[in-house]
Amino acid sequence: MAEQKKMVEAITPMDQDFAQWYTDIVKKAELCDYSGVRGCMVIEPYGYAIWENIRDILDKKFKELGHENVSMPMFIPESLLQKEKDHVEGFAPEVAWVTMGGGEKLSERLCVRPTSETLFCDHYARVIHSWRDLPKLYNQWCSVVRWEKTTRPFLRSVEFHWQEGHTMHETAEEARAETEQMLNVYADFCEQQLAIPVIRGRKTDKEKFAGAEATYTIEALMHDGKALQSGTSHYFGDGFARAFGIQFTDRENKLSYPHQTSWGMSTRIIGGIIMTHGDDNGLVLPPAIAPIQVMVIPVAMHKEGVLEKSREVLARLQKFCRAKTDESEQSPGWKFAQYEMKGVPLRLEIGPKDIEKNQCVLVRRDNREKIFVSLDELETRVPELLKAVHDGMYEKALARREQMTYTAVSFEEMKQIADEKPGFIKAMWCGDLACEEKIKEEAGLSSRCMPFEQEHLDGHCVCCGKEAKAMVYWGKAY
Amino acid sequence: MAEQKKMVEAITPMDQDFAQWYTDIVKKAELCDYSGVRGCMVIEPYGYAIWENIRDILDKKFKELGHENVSMPMFIPESLLQKEKDHVEGFAPEVAWVTMGGGEKLSERLCVRPTSETLFCDHYARVIHSWRDLPKLYNQWCSVVRWEKTTRPFLRSVEFHWQEGHTMHETAEEARAETEQMLNVYADFCEQQLAIPVIRGRKTDKEKFAGAEATYTIEALMHDGKALQSGTSHYFGDGFARAFGIQFTDRENKLSYPHQTSWGMSTRIIGGIIMTHGDDNGLVLPPAIAPIQVMVIPVAMHKEGVLEKSREVLARLQKFCRAKTDESEQSPGWKFAQYEMKGVPLRLEIGPKDIEKNQCVLVRRDNREKIFVSLDELETRVPELLKAVHDGMYEKALARREQMTYTAVSFEEMKQIADEKPGFIKAMWCGDLACEEKIKEEAGLSSRCMPFEQEHLDGHCVCCGKEAKAMVYWGKAY
Repeated sequence: MAEQKKMVEAITPMDQDFAQWYTDIVKKAELCDYSGVRGCMVIEPYGYAIWENIRDILDKKFKELGHENVSMPMFIPESLLQKEKDHVEGFAPEVAWVTMGGGEKLSERLCVRPTSETLFCDHYARVIHSWRDLPKLYNQWCSVVRWEKTTRPFLRSVEFHWQEGHTMHETAEEARAETEQMLNVYADFCEQQLAIPVIRGRKTDKEKFAGAEATYTIEALMHDGKALQSGTSHYFGDGFARAFGIQFTDRENKLSYPHQTSWGMSTRIIGGIIMTHGDDNGLVLPPAIAPIQVMVIPVAMHKEGVLEKSREVLARLQKFCRAKTDESEQSPGWKFAQYEMKGVPLRLEIGPKDIEKNQCVLVRRDNREKIFVSLDELETRVPELLKAVHDGMYEKALARREQMTYTAVSFEEMKQIADEKPGFIKAMWCGDLACEEKIKEEAGLSSRCMPFEQEHLDGHCVCCGKEAKAMVYWGKAY
Repeated sequence: MAEQKKMVEAITPMDQDFAQWYTDIVKKAELCDYSGVRGCMVIEPYGYAIWENIRDILDKKFKELGHENVSMPMFIPESLLQKEKDHVEGFAPEVAWVTMGGGEKLSERLCVRPTSETLFCDHYARVIHSWRDLPKLYNQWCSVVRWEKTTRPFLRSVEFHWQEGHTMHETAEEARAETEQMLNVYADFCEQQLAIPVIRGRKTDKEKFAGAEATYTIEALMHDGKALQSGTSHYFGDGFARAFGIQFTDRENKLSYPHQTSWGMSTRIIGGIIMTHGDDNGLVLPPAIAPIQVMVIPVAMHKEGVLEKSREVLARLQKFCRAKTDESEQSPGWKFAQYEMKGVPLRLEIGPKDIEKNQCVLVRRDNREKIFVSLDELETRVPELLKAVHDGMYEKALARREQMTYTAVSFEEMKQIADEKPGFIKAMWCGDLACEEKIKEEAGLSSRCMPFEQEHLDGHCVCCGKEAKAMVYWGKAY
């Protein structure tokens, strides 16, 4: 009991200090450990298993849509990085440079990839010659490095894992369709697997990716009312293709430049899961990516028949879900708290009295509801309850986002909401950079996206009063 | 037909120039592309799919044995690399150094990991406190960098992919058992999945891993008679634990140092697959890791009913194996050559005459045998034939290795064989470094391993004539 208490007390309540609550969960749920390397994480087994589940679901989807995995070098020679002007300006300030190799100074320094457009283009220039070589639908799973000054586990680290898709197409239409398709893959993944509702939309020019013609994003709202950019998809037009001299003979036998996309989702999303679903008892994991979906806890496990029954139940569960048990000498209470902390979606308790009644107790992590289930119905009830946990988590997150989304039609109103109420603010915008910068400066809000689902709140820009071109979601962001 | 001829002619015959034959296969089978980054590869979809299959099989096995995946940083601060003396001496000369980050000179330079013992130890020092924390059975899939001067795709590249297992144990016995277990996992994988026979044994002190107490290896023999170290497993004792101050309270409540292992297999093994099984028509892939196990080629595909039947057959195959079809306008002959080049284990031809007889033609890649199979028997015959291809490949490789393994009982004999006959030479050794170095210098042979299956060829060292301590496999190696 002492240990259980200690563990529960060890998490700082969310309302008291959100940042500390986050750090406590990362540490206590054993997701990652700070490393001896500034700004780099050690992702521990439980955290990495979450990433593997995310990877496996996305990878399967990518492959179903015709994408193939490849591996590009982790280094980019300086001259290659410099080929596309906007891109190098965006990334050069935050890269790590290798200047020595094998005991000698390198004649050209190499940066550790912050993203791999340049490497893919270098390869595409060698392998794309004819329209028959298109489309190229490549993806890679890897880690990249951006020299961030202040870092936080998962949310912002010097090295992080991600996947980066890089595709080349015959036509602009096809490339635009790919950009949109992949944004929808991310959005559906967030909503259907991670139970995170997202806003789908387009970034303003100020916020778009360095070198892109258009950047699309999905934005999620965290517990504390800050936004998290959770996945992006970029349309490049033929800008990189021209810079890298990638040309193909088209169907009319003319030389053309292909049209390009890239899209990525990273370990950052694990930070999003923590901050969307977690509570003061710890992590709450969406069933689809939880390393353990059901934790079997034998109660009074030294009583005759309990361990046997609990193992029998475990074996049945393992046929259709990720289930584990804890037969350690810790008290059931300690175990309950421990696996709540780790966010396991369902706890299955089984003790002598349950066995007498041929039942077990299932406890949902999301709302702590206790459900008595006949042991004859495990195979149907457990999947139903996992789905119920997912749905409950999604609905709760969606309700919170709706509660925390405000509308402003004047700049005064906007500033007041920004001061007093964390969350999204919907407001009209004229499209001018000047207004976007003024809103950033005076209200502390960045434009999160111009949502695909536009609403007509008003005819005028919230900032300058000129004719409005789009409704924008504004917010403070991670 | 012209294209088919062109393609076949494009591979340099193995006997004419083995190195060029290898390079031709890598390029023509589209396994990898040279990149603009010196010594680094672009692994193309077909090559990367092979690596994914290797990874999936090994990863499953590792997890069954209780290992967990983690992710360590890709950088090692110089002070961390230097903590274990032998280790830094072995690796420091061949690392790449990051000296600049975010536009500033770093106060301490970071090397890009050449291997991660130091990072794992740094983490273990923080998380291992009690015998209850042991064993730690961690693994990571990543890429590492070694600044090689001369590089070749898969065999030796500046950056390469691998997995590295790093484990910590309460006792030396347990750690030694783990070292041996993982070597056997690699050996069984090579033999049972890759059809590559291997010699299991221990490295001499001269050839062991920097910082290890003992290194175990599996050695395979390539087509040209050169050896390929195909997987290694190291026992470290408590050397790193002492250097990194990793201590735990043992079962007797005393402070102890844990005992450590590490073990790895890399993309190098893809080079081993090429050079063990390939022939003058191209790659020959073991069915277990072939991205395409059966290639369906419709013959006279514009004749009525052919495409329909071929698609029906494909759909049936895809239920139990990795099957594809090629419905492009290339001739069947071109397609036969193309997928032989790509090493697809089985080709399934189906044309109007076959359809009349309710049959298809299956052609084995390993021996080109043609088998007529009733369409009613696809589900049983195809798995049988895939197994037959595997067995045929293994037997052929084993027979060749036996043919190319020689025995020498005098130094003269050893030098003569080394001059005239490529392959392994078994010879007795006294255990002295001086003899090992003399054999290297005068016969051009390195010790490959002291096999677990020792034979008593003679009582005397082949080099100095003193009492022999072990039989050693000697050879030239990649």
